[in-house]
Amino acid sequence: MDIFFLGTGAGVPAKPRNVTAIALKLLEERGAIWLFDCGEATQHQILHTSIKPRRIEKIFITHLHGDHIYGLPGLLSSRSFQGGETEVVVYGPKGLKEYIQISLAISQTYLKYPLSVVEIEQGTVFEDDEFKVEAELLEHGIPSYGYRVTEKDRPGTLLADKLLEDGIKPGPIYKKIKAKESVELEDGRLINPHDYIGPDQKGRVIAILGDTRKCDAAVRLAQNADLLIHEATFSAGEEQLAYDYFHSTTTQAAEIAERANVSMLCLTHISSRYERSEWRTLEKESQELFPNTVISEDFKEIHIEAKKEQIL
Amino acid sequence: MDIFFLGTGAGVPAKPRNVTAIALKLLEERGAIWLFDCGEATQHQILHTSIKPRRIEKIFITHLHGDHIYGLPGLLSSRSFQGGETEVVVYGPKGLKEYIQISLAISQTYLKYPLSVVEIEQGTVFEDDEFKVEAELLEHGIPSYGYRVTEKDRPGTLLADKLLEDGIKPGPIYKKIKAKESVELEDGRLINPHDYIGPDQKGRVIAILGDTRKCDAAVRLAQNADLLIHEATFSAGEEQLAYDYFHSTTTQAAEIAERANVSMLCLTHISSRYERSEWRTLEKESQELFPNTVISEDFKEIHIEAKKEQIL
Repeated sequence: MDIFFLGTGAGVPAKPRNVTAIALKLLEERGAIWLFDCGEATQHQILHTSIKPRRIEKIFITHLHGDHIYGLPGLLSSRSFQGGETEVVVYGPKGLKEYIQISLAISQTYLKYPLSVVEIEQGTVFEDDEFKVEAELLEHGIPSYGYRVTEKDRPGTLLADKLLEDGIKPGPIYKKIKAKESVELEDGRLINPHDYIGPDQKGRVIAILGDTRKCDAAVRLAQNADLLIHEATFSAGEEQLAYDYFHSTTTQAAEIAERANVSMLCLTHISSRYERSEWRTLEKESQELFPNTVISEDFKEIHIEAKKEQIL
Repeated sequence: MDIFFLGTGAGVPAKPRNVTAIALKLLEERGAIWLFDCGEATQHQILHTSIKPRRIEKIFITHLHGDHIYGLPGLLSSRSFQGGETEVVVYGPKGLKEYIQISLAISQTYLKYPLSVVEIEQGTVFEDDEFKVEAELLEHGIPSYGYRVTEKDRPGTLLADKLLEDGIKPGPIYKKIKAKESVELEDGRLINPHDYIGPDQKGRVIAILGDTRKCDAAVRLAQNADLLIHEATFSAGEEQLAYDYFHSTTTQAAEIAERANVSMLCLTHISSRYERSEWRTLEKESQELFPNTVISEDFKEIHIEAKKEQIL
């Protein structure tokens, strides 16, 4: 599980930072990539990465401001042109369906894969055996959602080496042990399945938030997350400006991270008023309050380790 | 008057060529820039040029395929954000107005400058004292226009040095001479205004065409033009492919240039199937029939000289 930043700027594209798009790479977990937001030229950014558009399975849109959605029609079209055949589901606020439909219809674009658009409300927006995605409204000029992606806990794997060591050969019995059934061997030994199953793996949690003022919903979405991706459009001290424009400062993002008890904070949606030489300062502002902060950059990747500890 | 290529590829963006956008720089002529088509990331390409978005006065759209329009909402939005205050008029086929309106409305984008969208039909789509723009339908899968931009002939300038040499001092008399009135001087000399006015300057003509099969409308639009910008999606020999997909080959573009008696041909809308190493070959294919051919590249500029010759 990796986060790959395709665009980390605010409002308008600039040379050092494109407008917002974040890829959640779930290649090992489900052979898929999920996108969060899709600003203009997201598909252009992808050209410079190893990401295959046909791998994109889901796109979650936080809000409908142009710098978060204007890359959607092009990305969806090119994915078809480039041989994408599997379904894509796009989730986002009301209005998204009309925007996508009109853009594709007027340009007479016919996709060769099924496309669904789900206009979401607060709550669980997606759930299967492996993942759950919940959304809650943040505080912005227009409806803007934060997403909490929860990987479900996974049962431990069978310790095949240990089974062989103890003279238990592969066969239907392995399946029973994996299902945590007690088994009696032919030689009369009684097997405790828990001796031959590794620890359960606790799922990871990532919170990816849309544009927002500092707000309580952000804390709820990020509670105990492994990674919180929070906007920091402005530097510390610009709280009034942030409030007026429905954005956050570096310090405010750190406050949310601390209150939510996350493991790591990544700042994004950085205003182009800050030059490259100032990025480290922005990061430090947040680190003063929340040490494990990093600032995003276009093409930066963050790996989120699978957790080894047993679930109690 | 210069042509600046912002995007010269076909269908989908690729690293070496972005999707279509062509700037006609009329900075000396009217302090303005006109765009022809606006594929996704046109505003990103502009970031790497000296073009100021606030200078963009008119945008002519040839047809509504995504690779020619998906950059419009972003460009229009950013122009506002970056301080553009003067009006922009966008011309193009029916459907363009809805696309722009919906894109801006759903993203709650409020422009700080007046925007007009003119859904055109064949004929003169714009005319003022200096320029005329005519449109005619080409032959493509959807309505696709070609534009003929005609700079109007400009009257010669007053030869002030010669007037002074002949002892004629500045004053209201200069205005009369410029208006080509005969004038009698105080000393009785009769002045022939034509002796003191330089040659009229013939206006330049440029034809910029949308995607098309080889067709007669292209010849009419490009008749005697100084520059014809014609698509050449495919190489010579791929005429069947070109026909099937409503496009043209290098050779077909050359045939149009020859029949229309243009001064120069520029090939654009080059398929990404052709690698950089093959571009010179494509150019040569056209040059065999029409020697004064160049192939476009992203960020290439073509200067169109003002004509010095007198109008007969």
